[in-house]
Amino acid sequence: MTNEIMTNRKPFFITVEGGEGVGKTTNVAFIRQFLQHHEINHLHTREPGGTPLAEELREILLATRDESVGEMAELLMVFAARAQHLQQKILPALSSGKTVLCDRFTDATYAYQGCGRGLSIERIEQLEAMVQAGMQPDLTILLDLPVETGMARARARGELDRFESEHLAFFERVRAGYLARAAAEPERFSIIDASQDIASVQLQIESALLSFFSINIKHD
Amino acid sequence: MTNEIMTNRKPFFITVEGGEGVGKTTNVAFIRQFLQHHEINHLHTREPGGTPLAEELREILLATRDESVGEMAELLMVFAARAQHLQQKILPALSSGKTVLCDRFTDATYAYQGCGRGLSIERIEQLEAMVQAGMQPDLTILLDLPVETGMARARARGELDRFESEHLAFFERVRAGYLARAAAEPERFSIIDASQDIASVQLQIESALLSFFSINIKHD
Repeated sequence: MTNEIMTNRKPFFITVEGGEGVGKTTNVAFIRQFLQHHEINHLHTREPGGTPLAEELREILLATRDESVGEMAELLMVFAARAQHLQQKILPALSSGKTVLCDRFTDATYAYQGCGRGLSIERIEQLEAMVQAGMQPDLTILLDLPVETGMARARARGELDRFESEHLAFFERVRAGYLARAAAEPERFSIIDASQDIASVQLQIESALLSFFSINIKHD
Repeated sequence: MTNEIMTNRKPFFITVEGGEGVGKTTNVAFIRQFLQHHEINHLHTREPGGTPLAEELREILLATRDESVGEMAELLMVFAARAQHLQQKILPALSSGKTVLCDRFTDATYAYQGCGRGLSIERIEQLEAMVQAGMQPDLTILLDLPVETGMARARARGELDRFESEHLAFFERVRAGYLARAAAEPERFSIIDASQDIASVQLQIESALLSFFSINIKHD
C-alpha cells in the first residue's frame, strides 16, 4: 500500500453501521486515522444529527420520556434530521470534493425502525426515496457482533438510553436486519467480525478500506 | 336553536384555519364558548404541537435560527408532530366521545408549505396518506382576510416569528392556497369573512356551527 494509489480519487460517502456495543466510536476513530494517514480530505459526521437542528431532533429522539413516542412520529423525525443533514452538510461536502464518513445512516433506519420496531419497510422506502432521491453510501462498514456480547459492552459503558434499554429480542432483529441488508448489497457492504480483539478488528477494517479505495481508483 | 338538537351527537373533528392576524385566538375562544354553552364535551388543541414531544418540534420549527431549515426537513417535522398528536391526543379523544377543536391542521401544511413555500403537493399528499390514512376534519372553519389587513394586525401584536416575517407575496400564496382548498371541498369548509367587525365575524361562526351540528345530528 502506498499513498500514490489514493491520488486522483473522487470523494466517497462512507457509512459505519452496527448494533450496541460493537465498538463504533473506537473504530470510527480508527477509520479517521486511516483517512488522515492517506491524506484523504474528509468530513466526519453522525446520524441522527450532524447539524444543530438535526442534533436537536436527535435529543428529542433519544430522550427518555413519559410520553410514548409513536412509531410513525419517530420515523418522520429520523428522516427530517436526515434531510437536513444531507442538504446542509453531506451533499455540500461531497460537492466540494470531501469524502464523508458518517456514523450511521439509512441502513440503521431499516435495521432499528424497520426490523427492530416492525415499521413498514415500504414506508421507509417511500421516505428514503423522498429524502435521498437515490443517493446511497459508496461503502458501508458493518461492525457485526453477537447481541449478548454487544449488550454486555454497552452496559459496562454506563447508562443505557431509550433505544439501548429495549429488549434483547429487539437487538436480535436489528442484527438480522443489518445482515440481511449486507447480504442484499454485498458490493456496498463490508462485514467486519467485531467479536475479535481490537487489533484483528482494525486489520479487517484497514483491509476493507484499502480494497475499496484501490478498486474505486482503478475504476476512475 | 335549543340544546336538545345537540344531544345524541357523535364526536366531531373541527379545525380552524387562516393566515396571520385573522383573529384565530379570539375566535377559537369563541368556538370553545359555543361548545361549552351547548354542552358539547370537547378537547381544545393546536398544531404544530398538542403533546409535549410535538410542542418540542413546534419550538424547533418556529425558532429563528442561523441554520437555514430545508423544506423537506420542515415538512417531515410538521408531519412527525402531527403523527404524534393524532396518535396520542386527537384519536383517543374522539374514541372516548369527545369532539376535538384543533387550531390548524393539514390544510395549513398545504397552504404554508405547499402553496407558500412551493413544496411538491404530491409529497404532502404522500405524507398525509401515511400519517392520516384518510382521516379528515368533519368541519373546517377558514377565517379569511386580505393579507395586508392580517399582517398589520400581526405586526401590532408584537414580534413576528420565522413564518410571520416572510414576504407579503408568501402570504398571498397562503391565502390563495386556503381558498382553493375550500373551493375544492365546500361541504367540509365554512369560509368566514374575518375583515368585518368582531360581532359580525362571530355571528357568521355561530351560524356555521349551528348549521353544521344541526345537519350532522339530522343525519345521525
